[in-house]
Order: sequence, then structure tokens, then C-alpha cells
Amino acid sequence: MKKIVILGSTGSIGTQTLEVVRDSGDIEVVGLSAYSNIGLLEKQIREFRPKLAVTGTKELAEELKVKAADMDIRIAYGMEGLLELAQMEEAGLVVTAVVGMIGIRPTVAAIQAGKDIALANKETLVTAGHLIMPLADKYGVQILPVDSEHSAVFQVLHGEEKKAVSKLLITASGGPFRGKSRAFLEHVTAKDALKHPNWAMGKKITIDSATLVNKGLEVIEAKWLFGVAMDQIEVVIQPTSIIHSMVEFLDGAVIAQMGTPDMKLPIQYALYYPERKYRYGERLDFKKLREITFDAPDMETFRGLPLAIEASRIGGSMLTVFNAANERAVDAYLNGKIGFLDIYTLIEEAMAAHRAIDEPQLDEILAVEQDTWRITEHWISRHSQI
Amino acid sequence: MKKIVILGSTGSIGTQTLEVVRDSGDIEVVGLSAYSNIGLLEKQIREFRPKLAVTGTKELAEELKVKAADMDIRIAYGMEGLLELAQMEEAGLVVTAVVGMIGIRPTVAAIQAGKDIALANKETLVTAGHLIMPLADKYGVQILPVDSEHSAVFQVLHGEEKKAVSKLLITASGGPFRGKSRAFLEHVTAKDALKHPNWAMGKKITIDSATLVNKGLEVIEAKWLFGVAMDQIEVVIQPTSIIHSMVEFLDGAVIAQMGTPDMKLPIQYALYYPERKYRYGERLDFKKLREITFDAPDMETFRGLPLAIEASRIGGSMLTVFNAANERAVDAYLNGKIGFLDIYTLIEEAMAAHRAIDEPQLDEILAVEQDTWRITEHWISRHSQI
Repeated sequence: MKKIVILGSTGSIGTQTLEVVRDSGDIEVVGLSAYSNIGLLEKQIREFRPKLAVTGTKELAEELKVKAADMDIRIAYGMEGLLELAQMEEAGLVVTAVVGMIGIRPTVAAIQAGKDIALANKETLVTAGHLIMPLADKYGVQILPVDSEHSAVFQVLHGEEKKAVSKLLITASGGPFRGKSRAFLEHVTAKDALKHPNWAMGKKITIDSATLVNKGLEVIEAKWLFGVAMDQIEVVIQPTSIIHSMVEFLDGAVIAQMGTPDMKLPIQYALYYPERKYRYGERLDFKKLREITFDAPDMETFRGLPLAIEASRIGGSMLTVFNAANERAVDAYLNGKIGFLDIYTLIEEAMAAHRAIDEPQLDEILAVEQDTWRITEHWISRHSQI
Repeated sequence: MKKIVILGSTGSIGTQTLEVVRDSGDIEVVGLSAYSNIGLLEKQIREFRPKLAVTGTKELAEELKVKAADMDIRIAYGMEGLLELAQMEEAGLVVTAVVGMIGIRPTVAAIQAGKDIALANKETLVTAGHLIMPLADKYGVQILPVDSEHSAVFQVLHGEEKKAVSKLLITASGGPFRGKSRAFLEHVTAKDALKHPNWAMGKKITIDSATLVNKGLEVIEAKWLFGVAMDQIEVVIQPTSIIHSMVEFLDGAVIAQMGTPDMKLPIQYALYYPERKYRYGERLDFKKLREITFDAPDMETFRGLPLAIEASRIGGSMLTVFNAANERAVDAYLNGKIGFLDIYTLIEEAMAAHRAIDEPQLDEILAVEQDTWRITEHWISRHSQI
């Protein structure tokens, strides 16, 4: 019986992970966490019977204790709770599906406790890849990507030698505004942006997908996960998201992983790696599909990608600034405070104001995040439309 | 230093294999054979300095001996020569690039001598797969496919478990007459048929590609090579031959191998397996490519594929009949004796006239080939247009 912990079980990846567990019959969930959705967390506890559940705050923990009074479960909260969860002796694998830099410390703790990581938390590698990858090496644990693009590359590379890789071709749908001009983007609302053409995802990642910041974050993650240089990564627009990503090898062979847009496939692949298990669901039918189209990303209009490349070129703590500024900018956009294109401006301003620290340690990363938040909140309050 | 023998070095695959060897710097050619093109064979001997060269007949061997009198090389001929070549002590790998069932006995001999096989001879697996695959298992040798479709599947399956395979998706360009009607095909000449849209290949295989008999042969080969059932193999028309083939796994993931249409890639992959080495040449550029399209094969018009499936369903010696009848029919078509659609009729007539033997031994297979040739020659002489 495989035993897992899920950090962030009520979000999009968390709930889909539990769907995979529900279908599996041979995975036991020993720990769950949710920041604030304790209604759903209670349901999950009743169904999956973990030994430990963690909430965001003490108050929510108290509330959950009352709800779950009839159950044999320990309830904890906050970062201390997350760290306990990440190191649970029973668990062999930790799914890090929390959103934000809050995921970094529990990931570090899990690695140090020898747990394999099913990584769905983008911030961990983007801001601390230089710490995480050597740590995983040191403790001999696997970092198993859950994102569809990284899972695609990971699946393709399984059985191949790293030195045979020529480049990674990360595909992008181009988001809901592919082909649109800057003039158009000036007036798009969060509601428009939340209509992703192919994937059902969380709100933040859907906006990141529209700005192409998400693709930028993925490129940075890919660099760390697969140990390649930034110029070995190319983004290819593939609007229908049939091809989840590709690898070009030294001999010219390109190997692509494709599928229907169902996150449960990469989740299951990470949970069972290297085994593939049957999964019910729709299959690709190439005769119905008719075509797969490609395009180059519009780097002039959708500045998320070039800004990410620039942040990665500078490196160090600049990656934290890129990520933290975007996080707050997206939040402000979702709340109607700033416009779509302001997201780029805000990232640029925050990056311009920062002097990067090389190889920052965890506390430095978290301090830079705080600074960036301060700067962006200030900018937002000056420019807020409401 | 890798040491190889090439059976059929003056044909399309043979010459391209030597190009790969020329570029490699670390492969030694210890033996070569050519049926009749001793002019080219002499050149190859002078460049690659093998220890043994084999021609089709005694007369050609005598002629070559005179030409190569200044060189330290043994020259042999006929089946005895091929068998000697296949078992050369120095060689670790035998490339079987001869065309026709003449390739079967040397392949068997090479396997029994413990050589890995880079298999480019279709007839071997189509007619004797039930003998070859268990033999390769017994002697612990690898059958490395050279055909682009099989190499694609082989590359994708490297590192994957066989039990995780759901189906093989063998791609087909559809040949030069894709989309044409039977009425059109009644009058197409061999010259039209020899214009393959994507690949530069030998004449016989180019006609087989136009009739879809080639795809039928490939499906049968794939069944043996990868140990799957016929109904686990699907043919997908992909007119530009960018996707060389795909595998669908149990979890719904589809993994595809793509590349420019260059046979030297699968040849090199077979020679160096499992290592990938740099190969110069054009790379796929998805931004220029713009699209990859798909279609279902037209099984009504291009009966090569359904006839192959039917031959495989009956099995045993019926596969030899399918192959041998087609071989003679294509020859007659290339010589202007019969029309394009007569190729199908001839295969059907030969199959209808044959009562299949289960699990035929090598001598039985060769006897069935002789019988089939007799029947087809008779049919051709009755229907010849010249």
C-alpha cells in the first residue's frame, strides 16, 4: 500500500489527486491540509480517513476539531502543521499542491525526511530550485512533476540518457487571448481571462496562463527539473493542448507526449511512477482530431514569457521577485483593482527595483518575497481602479 | 569498435547504413553483400575494407575478384556466402537490408551465431515471425528495427513496460495516390506511383507504399516485433510523415516519435541502441511546420491493408502467400505487364488458392513461396498487357 500526504487537498490539484486515489484502491492517504476550506476538508477526512489534518489557522483548526469530534484524527494548523505533515513517518510520498511560496519549507522538510515529492507547487522550483534539486539528490528522493508539461517531458525522458537531450519543447495553448493585440488586452476583464480554452484549473493559474507568466514559470521549473540551460528550452504554441510537451534529442528525433487535457493522467503518473496503470476516460482519436497546429508565441504582446526568461537570466532572488510580484498583481487583477497589462508593468517595476542576491538561502528568499509584496501593494494602491 | 556486417549494401538501406558508418568514426564494416551491383560493391570495398564480400552468383564473384585483385579480401557468393557473412566471428551486429525472402535464412543463421540484428528485411518477420522471435529470445539477441515506423515505436517503448501498452498507432503517408478513387487507380503508371511524397526509397517499397501493402506488411511486422495482437494496431494517415508512429498506453498517454523523413536516424538508432548520438541534418521546426494532419486510411480503395489483416488473421503460411504474390505483382506492374489494381486482384487470387499451413517451418515457407510464384506468374502471363 502506497501511503501519501497531500498538502493543499481542497484545491484543483488536491481534489483531482483524491479522485485518482479514490479510483486506485491501493493508495492510502495519511495526511491532508487545506488553508481555509474546512467544509470540504471535513468531507475528505470522512472519506479518506487520514491520521493528520492541517488547517491554515488555529481558529479553523478548532472549528474542524468540533466537526470531526467523532473521528480518530489529529488536527494541527499553520506552518508547524504543514511541516509535521510533510515529515509523517507513515508517508512515502508528499503531494505538494499548495499554491504560493508557503509550499517551499514543507517541501524541504519532506525531502529531508526522505519522502518522494509529487510537485504541483510551482514556486518551490522557481524560487528555490538551486536549493531543492541538490537537496533531493543528497537525500536520494525523486521530484516527480505533476504539471502536464513537465510530466510530458518526464515521461519522454524516462529510459533516455540526459546527455542525449538537445532541447525541450514546452507547449503552450496560448491562453484565451492568443492572437489578440495589446489594445484589446487593455480592457479584458478577469471574467474573460478565466475562460481557459482547454483546461479546467484554479483561478490564479488561469490568469497566469492568459498572461503567459505561467509558461514562463514552467520554463524556469523545467530548467531545474531537467537540468538544462534556458536556451535549450523552446516554447511552442499548440492551441488545443493535445501535445503536452516534447523533447528533441541529439540525433534529431523528437518525442512528444500527448493526451486529452486531463490532469489526472500526470497526477497518476507521479503517484505510480515508473508504473503506468489503466485509467478510464476519453482517449485521443486521431481520425476525429484531424489536425494539430503550431505557432510561435507572441513575445511582444504576452510579456510573461520574456520577463520570466529575463528573471532567470539574472537569476538568484530575481526569480522570487518575478513570482511574488506576479502573484500580487494577479490577485489585484482578479479583484478588479488593476488592468490585465498592469500585471506586466507591475512585474517589470518590481524587477527594476530589486538588486538580485545570488544563490539566496530560504530565509533570504522569504524576505525578498515580503519586500516584493510591499512594493507591489504600494504600486497597486497608487494605481487601483477601484 | 562496433563491428558490423551488411547484407544488401548497395540498396537504399545498405547505402544509407554506410553513410551512417562513414560519419560515425567508430564502426567497422567487416562484411558486405550485393546481389548484382558489383560496380558499387567494389567502391564500397575500397572505402570500407571489409574482410568478406558476397555477390549473388559465381560469375559476379569471379568478376569482382578480378576488380579487387589488389585487395586483401575474401569473395564468396550465393546463399552459402550470405550464411558465411551472417555468422562472421568478428561481427557483433548484422544489418539485414536485402530485399525478399532470401533474407530469412541468413537472419536465422546470424541469430544462432549470437549476432544482434538490425532488421530492414520485411519478409523475415512477415513470413517467419513465429520462428524468428522465439529464436532471438533463445539466443538472447536483439532485433532492432530499422524501418522508421517500427523504430519510432521501439524508441517510444524504450524504458516502458510492455504490459502498459494499450495500442500501437502506425502512421502512414497514404502514398502518392491518397484521396484518389479506384477509377483513377485503374490507369496510373509505375512512373506516377514511384513519386513518393516524403521518402526517397527503393522502387518496390515505393509501389508497396502506394498500394498500402507496405503498411500491411509493417502492421504484421509490428505484431511480431512488439508482441501485440493485430487489433491493438491502428493505422493512422499522417500525410507529411512527420510523426513516424505512436504508442497509446493504458493510462491514455500517447507518445509519438517524430522527425524529418531521414532513414539515417532509425539506422543510426539501431546501430548504437540504446545510445543516441548526435546526427547532423535538418531538425523539425514546429513554428514553420504549422500543422500536422490526420486521416483514416481508405480501406475500400487501398486494399493492401485489409488484405494484410486478412492474411494475418488466417496466419501461418498465408502470410508468405500475401508477401510473395505481392512481390511478383509489383514486379509485373513495374514492368508494365499489369495495372495498379491488378496487384490487389493477384494477391486475392493467390490467397484464395492457398490452404494455409499453421506454424510453417522454414522449408515449408520457402516451398509456399515457390508455389505462390508459380501461380502468380501464370496469372500474370494470362493477363499481361504487353
